[in-house]
Amino acid sequence: MKLVRTGPIGHELPGVLRDDVVLHVADVVRDFDGDFFAGGGLQSLRTRLDNDRSLPSTPARDIERWGAPVARPGKVVCIGLNYRDHAAESSMPTPDEPVVFFKAPNTVIGPHDDVLLPIGGHKTDWEVELGVVIARTARYLPSIEAARDCIAGYCVSHDVSERSFQLERGGQWVKGKSCETFNPLGPWLVTADEIPDPQDLSLELSVNGESRQQGTTADMIFPVLEIVRYVSQFMVLEPGDLINTGTPAGVGMGMTPPRYLRAGDVVELSVGGLGRQRQLIAQAV
Amino acid sequence: MKLVRTGPIGHELPGVLRDDVVLHVADVVRDFDGDFFAGGGLQSLRTRLDNDRSLPSTPARDIERWGAPVARPGKVVCIGLNYRDHAAESSMPTPDEPVVFFKAPNTVIGPHDDVLLPIGGHKTDWEVELGVVIARTARYLPSIEAARDCIAGYCVSHDVSERSFQLERGGQWVKGKSCETFNPLGPWLVTADEIPDPQDLSLELSVNGESRQQGTTADMIFPVLEIVRYVSQFMVLEPGDLINTGTPAGVGMGMTPPRYLRAGDVVELSVGGLGRQRQLIAQAV
Repeated sequence: MKLVRTGPIGHELPGVLRDDVVLHVADVVRDFDGDFFAGGGLQSLRTRLDNDRSLPSTPARDIERWGAPVARPGKVVCIGLNYRDHAAESSMPTPDEPVVFFKAPNTVIGPHDDVLLPIGGHKTDWEVELGVVIARTARYLPSIEAARDCIAGYCVSHDVSERSFQLERGGQWVKGKSCETFNPLGPWLVTADEIPDPQDLSLELSVNGESRQQGTTADMIFPVLEIVRYVSQFMVLEPGDLINTGTPAGVGMGMTPPRYLRAGDVVELSVGGLGRQRQLIAQAV
Repeated sequence: MKLVRTGPIGHELPGVLRDDVVLHVADVVRDFDGDFFAGGGLQSLRTRLDNDRSLPSTPARDIERWGAPVARPGKVVCIGLNYRDHAAESSMPTPDEPVVFFKAPNTVIGPHDDVLLPIGGHKTDWEVELGVVIARTARYLPSIEAARDCIAGYCVSHDVSERSFQLERGGQWVKGKSCETFNPLGPWLVTADEIPDPQDLSLELSVNGESRQQGTTADMIFPVLEIVRYVSQFMVLEPGDLINTGTPAGVGMGMTPPRYLRAGDVVELSVGGLGRQRQLIAQAV
């Protein structure tokens, strides 16, 4: 299934995208949130869709706004430097074990919402990533097989980063990762059963039509299942949590000279089979 | 007011502590969460308490379990190295501007709940801190006066830290800050009107009855109002968010030789006027 949430900001309603049509399931499901995943909602929804042909629907082209495909996560866990070429362009060593940091969960916005350049920042950068949404509580997972059972699905995630805050203001990276609008998500959450191999997905990002990132999840240093297993050794992952699994080379910081986002820029990004995002960059006021 | 939440884990109900009696306000207030603070709940509750003498009550000594005084925060923001003596004992430079990191919000537990030593960790350490709870959305605050209006109140917060995860496993500190049970909170949220000067509060912590930390918030490098103003430049603070404002000297990592927590230890900590916590240390299994 491709789960979606559509409607105005703060009033999104759940739906399922099928054959370019959004089936509205708000009468079946309250929201795609932790309770939904924890309560076996995916299976119930699938059964309902198989047996009910009368759900209200809207052609996808008529959807006015796509929200993030899951409600605000309890936490947004990020994996840093998970592609060798990105570690190299960041002038950082290839990590021996996953580098973990958090983004503020209230950075999550819809896939086509405007991204705001933070006041006081001047090095806002792009990062296309594979996002993983957790389906069940994960605590000290013993194996990658156990990790597999904890994944609800996958989505495009844009880990927008303000490098001057992240790297030049002292302390930890979180300062440059948590500005408002810094995590466009979606348009779809594609359930795990439809992604036979999460390590075989293309990643692409362009700015104003010029290609900037072209990668594949095959190049991850730590693959998705290992990331989920690993993170669960350090914290309890919960249904609805989001993990951003790292970005390949091609970020603005890595260019010579570096190039960052400016108001009016348009960023487009996609992950193979998971859809495409498009954001206008605007200045926060 | 002293806000409290009492009852079994996951089923806490809101109350107000007054003259050693808990007034139960679950009929008035759904919970002490972001919606409560955002919706003017503090003022409504105060008015109701002034006019209603018939609320059900329980003597404080008969309360079986105290939960965290606020529901799970949307985020837990921490300030690192905010006392010169703690920066020195940590062998880290005194920061030029606040060091910011996150804890996973699902680390928050009641003030007297057991703290679990993480599997694979062997350097679990204590940190008594002044916790600040946010009352209203804070975004690019222009001044410390504006910050003052955004504070709901104060509480004791225990920023438990696994140093081997934090400092020896690569990457960012979050790895050693987010283990389950790592943020005992409470017993009370004391509303800001009852704390005339948050920079004049004593902090104390003992392990098995031996004093380990004795400090005062007067020694903070960055005071509370400046912290709230500063953090709001990098992320949007929301009602119900928690900020841990740093710990004074005396952590286990700073001792010669270092001393860490072991199963069976008892940690007691307090902040002047905000109550006292007591945790039994146990091994996670």
